[in-house]
Amino acid sequence: MAEVAAGLTAPGRAAAEALVRMRATAPLVQCITNYVAMNFAANVVIAAGGAPAMVHATEEAGEFAALASALTVNIGTLSPPWVEGMRAAAAGARAAGVPWVLDPVAAGATAYRREVAAELLGLRPTVLRGNASEILALAGEGGAGRGVDAGDEVAAAEDAARVLAQRYGCLVAVTGATDFVTDGTRALRIVGGHSLMPKVTAMGCALTAVVGGFIAGADDAMGAVAGALALFAVAGEAAGANAAGPGSFQVAFLDTLPSVAPDDLALAGRVVPA
Amino acid sequence: MAEVAAGLTAPGRAAAEALVRMRATAPLVQCITNYVAMNFAANVVIAAGGAPAMVHATEEAGEFAALASALTVNIGTLSPPWVEGMRAAAAGARAAGVPWVLDPVAAGATAYRREVAAELLGLRPTVLRGNASEILALAGEGGAGRGVDAGDEVAAAEDAARVLAQRYGCLVAVTGATDFVTDGTRALRIVGGHSLMPKVTAMGCALTAVVGGFIAGADDAMGAVAGALALFAVAGEAAGANAAGPGSFQVAFLDTLPSVAPDDLALAGRVVPA
Amino acid sequence: MAEVAAGLTAPGRAAAEALVRMRATAPLVQCITNYVAMNFAANVVIAAGGAPAMVHATEEAGEFAALASALTVNIGTLSPPWVEGMRAAAAGARAAGVPWVLDPVAAGATAYRREVAAELLGLRPTVLRGNASEILALAGEGGAGRGVDAGDEVAAAEDAARVLAQRYGCLVAVTGATDFVTDGTRALRIVGGHSLMPKVTAMGCALTAVVGGFIAGADDAMGAVAGALALFAVAGEAAGANAAGPGSFQVAFLDTLPSVAPDDLALAGRVVPA
Repeated sequence: MAEVAAGLTAPGRAAAEALVRMRATAPLVQCITNYVAMNFAANVVIAAGGAPAMVHATEEAGEFAALASALTVNIGTLSPPWVEGMRAAAAGARAAGVPWVLDPVAAGATAYRREVAAELLGLRPTVLRGNASEILALAGEGGAGRGVDAGDEVAAAEDAARVLAQRYGCLVAVTGATDFVTDGTRALRIVGGHSLMPKVTAMGCALTAVVGGFIAGADDAMGAVAGALALFAVAGEAAGANAAGPGSFQVAFLDTLPSVAPDDLALAGRVVPA
Repeated sequence: MAEVAAGLTAPGRAAAEALVRMRATAPLVQCITNYVAMNFAANVVIAAGGAPAMVHATEEAGEFAALASALTVNIGTLSPPWVEGMRAAAAGARAAGVPWVLDPVAAGATAYRREVAAELLGLRPTVLRGNASEILALAGEGGAGRGVDAGDEVAAAEDAARVLAQRYGCLVAVTGATDFVTDGTRALRIVGGHSLMPKVTAMGCALTAVVGGFIAGADDAMGAVAGALALFAVAGEAAGANAAGPGSFQVAFLDTLPSVAPDDLALAGRVVPA
Repeated sequence: MAEVAAGLTAPGRAAAEALVRMRATAPLVQCITNYVAMNFAANVVIAAGGAPAMVHATEEAGEFAALASALTVNIGTLSPPWVEGMRAAAAGARAAGVPWVLDPVAAGATAYRREVAAELLGLRPTVLRGNASEILALAGEGGAGRGVDAGDEVAAAEDAARVLAQRYGCLVAVTGATDFVTDGTRALRIVGGHSLMPKVTAMGCALTAVVGGFIAGADDAMGAVAGALALFAVAGEAAGANAAGPGSFQVAFLDTLPSVAPDDLALAGRVVPA
């Protein structure tokens, strides 16, 4: 954990190093994600430097997870056969020491979603990433979420994030206008992004997949998570500056990701102690 | 129904008002749609002013429909578990008084599709939206459709649309070069669009999702449907004027949707009594 | 087979003629493909001149295949119900004399994938299209593939491709920096493309769908397969020349496809005897 402490003193540098490592190693990221995000998330992971593989069936999800560098699980369009595959993949990842990320989309919206999200969280992900409403819902604090959108501000979910991180021994990232990531004790905020980002579907789902790529092989997992969030913050700003709307934003975002300079993640004010 | 009558005397104004309302209320639109359309439809609904949620599993589709502002059901890539979810969602919507839209993709292509489309139509959608071949197939008049494309002109399906509207007590929208919408008695035509629109997959599926957003909370449902069709007609023309092909058309279409002026839907010649 | 011989003497001309025929006939291509590729593959088939239909359920896949001009089967996100639909579709296609294409995505990655790919290959596709690692895996020669990426060069898989073509009586296309297609005796190489193509997910899956369109109604099937590969090589080069990254590449690729001149597929050095 020495690296995490070092990350906190120069947290932007840890984020930047995580980007350098991801590009150098092209980690194989198994993504079990929703139908909306499948294509965009795969393209974003490639553009960020990883190698995505969408593998979900129970027949192979656990076997594949053991071969992957990281696993990401997103419940956006869940159904029983997919949840079975998520369980198999999480078990395969844990048995092989592969880190994994849980994205509890709209966790509080229905009874089924609440049950599945709680069960998967109990399988001990390495990282939990959600919007404020999802994190509040998982912490049992209700939240104003409606459908897949966050109805709450990130700041309102920071305490819930710390509680969940301690309860489940994981990192928790709450994303929104300013992101927040905590291990239950220490915390970072990541500043940036663009107002068009919530106008593009599956941006959060794609971010979850990229978090998987960043934590693969990371010594400083919190710095790596911050790196994924900072990459989105930097690329989102750059893409938004050249976009005429949500269509051209997506194009510019994919074009921008491969050329983001790691040092841009470390500039003052981007990744800051909370 | 006084509002409908008013819409017919100034139908473009009703369409424009529906766009203003959609943007102001950001209705939560539950979309059960096909794998091809998932991402594009979600992005189009957001760009049009709504909040899409792709929720299809039987375990939650009915519960979610009761929370939604509208439901849209598209059978493009149907299979038995999805059809079960569509039934649950339609039942949940009806029980809660939530309007819903049926998109009977390629309804006449196979026996399975004919059966499912007929069954769902019997569940009494608020709006039925299809191309001419699909509407003819549902009316039992064959049609020249092949796969998902319309092999028939809209004009050839106008009588079938009126018959279906009366038989099922719903609005029927037939879309193509010039769109047609009827409640079985009155009817409107919506003029516009661009020749690149049929060259982009899932445009019709995305339109169905947007119709859901327009009819949410509408007093004048026919004016609201016309509003969705007119929004596509206006945005399609604008996007087509700047597009070099089907790729840049999609980008321009998403960029254009948020900035379409409501008054453009009300200009003479856009929405006209049939 | 006289046409194939003619294609070998002027193989580029056969490729060009296949493009002309595809655009003239707009063949109905039934695509059973993965969730990642659904939208992009449909848009690419349309832009190339075909009419895609994504129909996968066992309840209708075989019936639809008999109506289609070609069938394409891609196992990228396979699961048991989908594999059942693939079997039904392949059987329907064979019974009706409809040509079909198999794309064995990541065939060597897991036991389940190996079994399904081998079973489908045993159903005798007209064309097998994969990357070098997939072709090597199917030939029982291991391969360095990891996830969905090729870890091997096309040249390393040419012998395996000839063996598979003879063993299964099909055409085998191995795609990569320079493509290779063989009927087990004769062979062609297709030169071109762009370095951004492997940076866009589902390019290979979309190519498989386009191969379906090209072989529909083809007398010279090898020339038709070469035509699909050459269309991608030409359009990829043109799109890459105008792209700032993987986002704008996709847009330019879709914009370019409809306007590729058939003669560009026949220029010296594009399609060459191997």
